Amino acid sequence: MARTVFAEQDLSQNLFLGGKVSLLQPKNGYRAGVDPVLLAASVPAQPGESLLELGCGAGQAMLCVNARIPGLKITGVELQFAYADLARRNGKLNDCALKVHEADLTMLPDGVKQQQFDHVIANPPYYRKGAHSPSQNNGRRVALGEETPLGQWIDIAARRLRHKGYLHVIQRADRLPDVLMASADRLGSVEVLPLAPRVGRAAELVLVRARKGGRAAFRLHAPLVLHLGAQHGEDGVDYSPQVEAILRNGAALAWPT
Amino acid sequence: MARTVFAEQDLSQNLFLGGKVSLLQPKNGYRAGVDPVLLAASVPAQPGESLLELGCGAGQAMLCVNARIPGLKITGVELQFAYADLARRNGKLNDCALKVHEADLTMLPDGVKQQQFDHVIANPPYYRKGAHSPSQNNGRRVALGEETPLGQWIDIAARRLRHKGYLHVIQRADRLPDVLMASADRLGSVEVLPLAPRVGRAAELVLVRARKGGRAAFRLHAPLVLHLGAQHGEDGVDYSPQVEAILRNGAALAWPT
Repeated sequence: MARTVFAEQDLSQNLFLGGKVSLLQPKNGYRAGVDPVLLAASVPAQPGESLLELGCGAGQAMLCVNARIPGLKITGVELQFAYADLARRNGKLNDCALKVHEADLTMLPDGVKQQQFDHVIANPPYYRKGAHSPSQNNGRRVALGEETPLGQWIDIAARRLRHKGYLHVIQRADRLPDVLMASADRLGSVEVLPLAPRVGRAAELVLVRARKGGRAAFRLHAPLVLHLGAQHGEDGVDYSPQVEAILRNGAALAWPT
Repeated sequence: MARTVFAEQDLSQNLFLGGKVSLLQPKNGYRAGVDPVLLAASVPAQPGESLLELGCGAGQAMLCVNARIPGLKITGVELQFAYADLARRNGKLNDCALKVHEADLTMLPDGVKQQQFDHVIANPPYYRKGAHSPSQNNGRRVALGEETPLGQWIDIAARRLRHKGYLHVIQRADRLPDVLMASADRLGSVEVLPLAPRVGRAAELVLVRARKGGRAAFRLHAPLVLHLGAQHGEDGVDYSPQVEAILRNGAALAWPT
């Protein structure tokens, strides 16, 4: 993989969580969306705990967690050199002392492999290799289409968790069986929160949380509805109040009790 | 297992689907509920097709399918002698020429094992063996608590399906991972319809359909809401219109397209 960084003119700087997070990202390529923000909001970390993100990209999810919970020890792993570089820059830009390793998930550096984390988060690629038309943009292709199978992401995450540590993953709803199967042997207390675009519509995404050594029964929660109304209104102005609070004010995503 | 039948004074006769189905069942023991009616309503069988129910009890689900779709060739398998006997009686009572075999699922008679069915349905026991306080009533205990692991139900069902045949199962939502894992190797085109008691409440039950040789992506549908309003009203009078049409008029359960 080329060890080049993004040229300045190819970057834009965008604000998230009502300005609490500032993110440099390529104008073309994989760009930050709502999903990593929801993932970050779903993590019930406590100040001082450690958090590892697998496939951290430009650092959006890590920085969103950091903005909500101070004093976390945050580590990111990113396969693509240019994104790992950007994540480090974004860390500095947001006064967040995060560590970013450029590495393949299946060959984690010793510094990560020897550590166990209170939390692992991941937003693994949404498409199976070969199951979609590859993007012409290489960075976008690697970010969206998996090189490492989804089950392996869960497996690697589970290994890096301490006993009773939490995994949070966001993924397409149609990959839920893969997530559950990969979790079955290594994790417990699995909960699924479907993310429905509208009331009565099928969820396109699911948030999945699981706990290492957890023994609670599986829970399928009522969907979190992202948008108000039955039709798509003006973009970004029709989020449901809970989602608005997450995206605009940096609130936590409250898992159903 | 004792080869005794229920004494007449221990039986009651109840109506389902607005009187389309008449069911003899024990006054004490496993009694028919809403679940087998919803299961039956979810099956998109065509006249003349074959249908097998694993663990048919007194025959409620089979007879509800029969009331909606004429000319099916229906076979039931039931472990408990007294319930198998009752299912046969209920077949006659409803002018339905169903075949009922008294057999353990893991030792199906040749007449069933040599056949492949267009549809298999099952309402497997809801509780893992040892995971609940066993009922004092033997019939109820066998019906509610599994002797055969859930995965084995799915496996046996899949073997009995013809290519492109459908399995429909109703099960507790917390057993969904088990259903999905058991389906993964043998079935495809899996769809999950959560059955939520109220709007915004977590589903307690799920309907799962899968197709032998199916290749469509997994689908998690928006929940079917059973009851209107946020609070529990008078029992049986607050069903949502779609569920009311199923329970009272024998309508089909329309899977989302």
